[in-house]
Amino acid sequence: MRTQVAIIGSGPSGLLLGQLLHKAGIDAVILEKHTKDYVLSRIRAGIIEQICVDLLDEAGVGERMHRQGLVHHGIEIAFKGRRHRIDFKALTGGKSVMVYGQTEITRDLMDAREAAGLPTVYEAADVSIHDFDTARPRVRYVKDGKAHEIECDFIAGCDGYHGVCRASVPQGALTTYERVYPFGWLGLLSDTPPVSDELIYINHERGFALCSMRSRTRSRYYVQCSLEDKVEQWSDDAFWDELRRRMDPETAERLVTGPSIEKSIAPLRSFVAEPMRFGRLFLAGDAAHIVPPTGAKGLNLAAADVRYLSRALIEYYRDRSEAGIDHYSEKALRRIWKAERFSWMMTNLLHRFPDQGDFGRRIQEAELDYLVSSTAASTSLAENYVGLPFED
Amino acid sequence: MRTQVAIIGSGPSGLLLGQLLHKAGIDAVILEKHTKDYVLSRIRAGIIEQICVDLLDEAGVGERMHRQGLVHHGIEIAFKGRRHRIDFKALTGGKSVMVYGQTEITRDLMDAREAAGLPTVYEAADVSIHDFDTARPRVRYVKDGKAHEIECDFIAGCDGYHGVCRASVPQGALTTYERVYPFGWLGLLSDTPPVSDELIYINHERGFALCSMRSRTRSRYYVQCSLEDKVEQWSDDAFWDELRRRMDPETAERLVTGPSIEKSIAPLRSFVAEPMRFGRLFLAGDAAHIVPPTGAKGLNLAAADVRYLSRALIEYYRDRSEAGIDHYSEKALRRIWKAERFSWMMTNLLHRFPDQGDFGRRIQEAELDYLVSSTAASTSLAENYVGLPFED
Repeated sequence: MRTQVAIIGSGPSGLLLGQLLHKAGIDAVILEKHTKDYVLSRIRAGIIEQICVDLLDEAGVGERMHRQGLVHHGIEIAFKGRRHRIDFKALTGGKSVMVYGQTEITRDLMDAREAAGLPTVYEAADVSIHDFDTARPRVRYVKDGKAHEIECDFIAGCDGYHGVCRASVPQGALTTYERVYPFGWLGLLSDTPPVSDELIYINHERGFALCSMRSRTRSRYYVQCSLEDKVEQWSDDAFWDELRRRMDPETAERLVTGPSIEKSIAPLRSFVAEPMRFGRLFLAGDAAHIVPPTGAKGLNLAAADVRYLSRALIEYYRDRSEAGIDHYSEKALRRIWKAERFSWMMTNLLHRFPDQGDFGRRIQEAELDYLVSSTAASTSLAENYVGLPFED
Repeated sequence: MRTQVAIIGSGPSGLLLGQLLHKAGIDAVILEKHTKDYVLSRIRAGIIEQICVDLLDEAGVGERMHRQGLVHHGIEIAFKGRRHRIDFKALTGGKSVMVYGQTEITRDLMDAREAAGLPTVYEAADVSIHDFDTARPRVRYVKDGKAHEIECDFIAGCDGYHGVCRASVPQGALTTYERVYPFGWLGLLSDTPPVSDELIYINHERGFALCSMRSRTRSRYYVQCSLEDKVEQWSDDAFWDELRRRMDPETAERLVTGPSIEKSIAPLRSFVAEPMRFGRLFLAGDAAHIVPPTGAKGLNLAAADVRYLSRALIEYYRDRSEAGIDHYSEKALRRIWKAERFSWMMTNLLHRFPDQGDFGRRIQEAELDYLVSSTAASTSLAENYVGLPFED
């Protein structure tokens, strides 16, 4: 088989890239090692920036998002028992974010891909990538016990943190940066109305908590937990009790609880691999970088990568220019480090750290006090949350 | 002897408090364990906020400051070999800071005190404070081998971090918060023209450096050094070489060197003691809190304390109201924690830390990149540097 771009991974990065390339008349094949249902069962982020909304529109898959998504003009930050609103609209000149689950985006992209008859190979086993340091890269995989090979011009590694693409880069060509945080997030999804119209980020002496949502009838809540905790130790009741303890009284009073649809513990990690291009292999999304979820940046960064990469590839095929692909890594990384910084800062600001000590806790309170009392500091948070302007 | 307010310590806090009380017709005696010349030989900060300028004017000692001080409308921050200006005037609606050495302020205050014939006891030995939990506090000291006692209404502890006042507070009444940084500042004072009209804060892989000044002909430079370093190991030449290595080429080219007048290593510490009032004892300035010098906040915080305390005492004597003294600690601490936060943030932003690792260094670069590229982030730095508005 031959294609122009072999895309590894059918998460939102790979699917969005495939759709944007298709719109530009560029052929792509997507290889995915899991089943379609498995991919759709993953519960992920749900806050998207305007640039991500625009990109989904550009890809022609924005219709349901605009119908079902919720536009949020601010968030609340709670500490010392009081909530403080960060007004994105007022602080950023009218910007907002959209609440629309990553799972829904994935589904919309899969549907569009199927409707257009574009090739995705699910359950592609033993995927391996070859010769991306030459003009003729190849991808091998096994499907239903049979070995296949794809010849292509480029490989897009959209296969996540544990994927094969980054792992295939020769030793020494990659520099990685990492910070693992000493706690996790215990998340619970339930078909209950959200406790508030907007997200509430809570700094509490018992630990961080987040009141989030996927829709007007589906809530997503998180509490900071120990990395030693097992999800089985947390009954729904225990979760709701702990969440309530971290809320201000008024919010706790309003909380509607119900059975969990999903409950899981996720570790928090900051990770960046540099560069993001090796010859004719490009990494995008979680394959190259991870942010802790505190800043809601993971999916948005992946979308930004795909924006840069799709434009670079289109430029290559349409204008026969390599300028875009040559600058892909550098441009993407500039944005990534800004989002890494923001996510790290938000994580530091809102969580209890085992080693922060009394001074660290008071500094955290002073940071929060300053944040909500200074227009400049609030604007800084708001402009990062809604997404910094694109440099290109 | 009897006075209304016994002030312990003749640094700028004690002297400024004495002057403001005198203007309001309140008697005070200042006790200082060192000689006048010793106090004047201490080399300290030199950047003062508008509130400090205003307070010195109010105390009637601003004349020489306005004549000799330099008004600065911005600073430069250098990293990755490039300088970036933070324009205070544009970002804060016209605010600025004044460069005028703490030593000069101390001298002006001492001169004014002498001219007014106000009592200061230098070389007061074995100072001890008593009964400040009653309405009749007393201070004892020895002068020229003879024991003395002062009866007073209040004691103002302006005697610095190592002073007797904080140490006299009963165990358990005080909560302290502390962070000691794993490096020091090696400072050099020289009669050479400053390398730039404004201060330059340098983040460099070899460590932080700061180009500061006391006047148009006197420069003050610093380089981050190890806490194990001894000042004797650092020849003037070694200092200048190290400073030059941390500068961008253009600045290094302009640097004029000369023999040091003074050279010393100072540790960096964040420290807060709470509360700042115990009955009729008040702590002010370094006696209650220390900031690392990176944010130029030490002297300014002391001035803010003195502003709150002088107004509180004047209110007490003039209006027979205890409201001011009752709220002194709480008001002062609110401002102090904001300055502690800023000084801690600036220290983290600009220094090399032994344990920061590669991720930490990249985050620091991302912080700096964001700081100089975002108006909101630059404004946040500027508004803190020139001094946050007073809440009262």
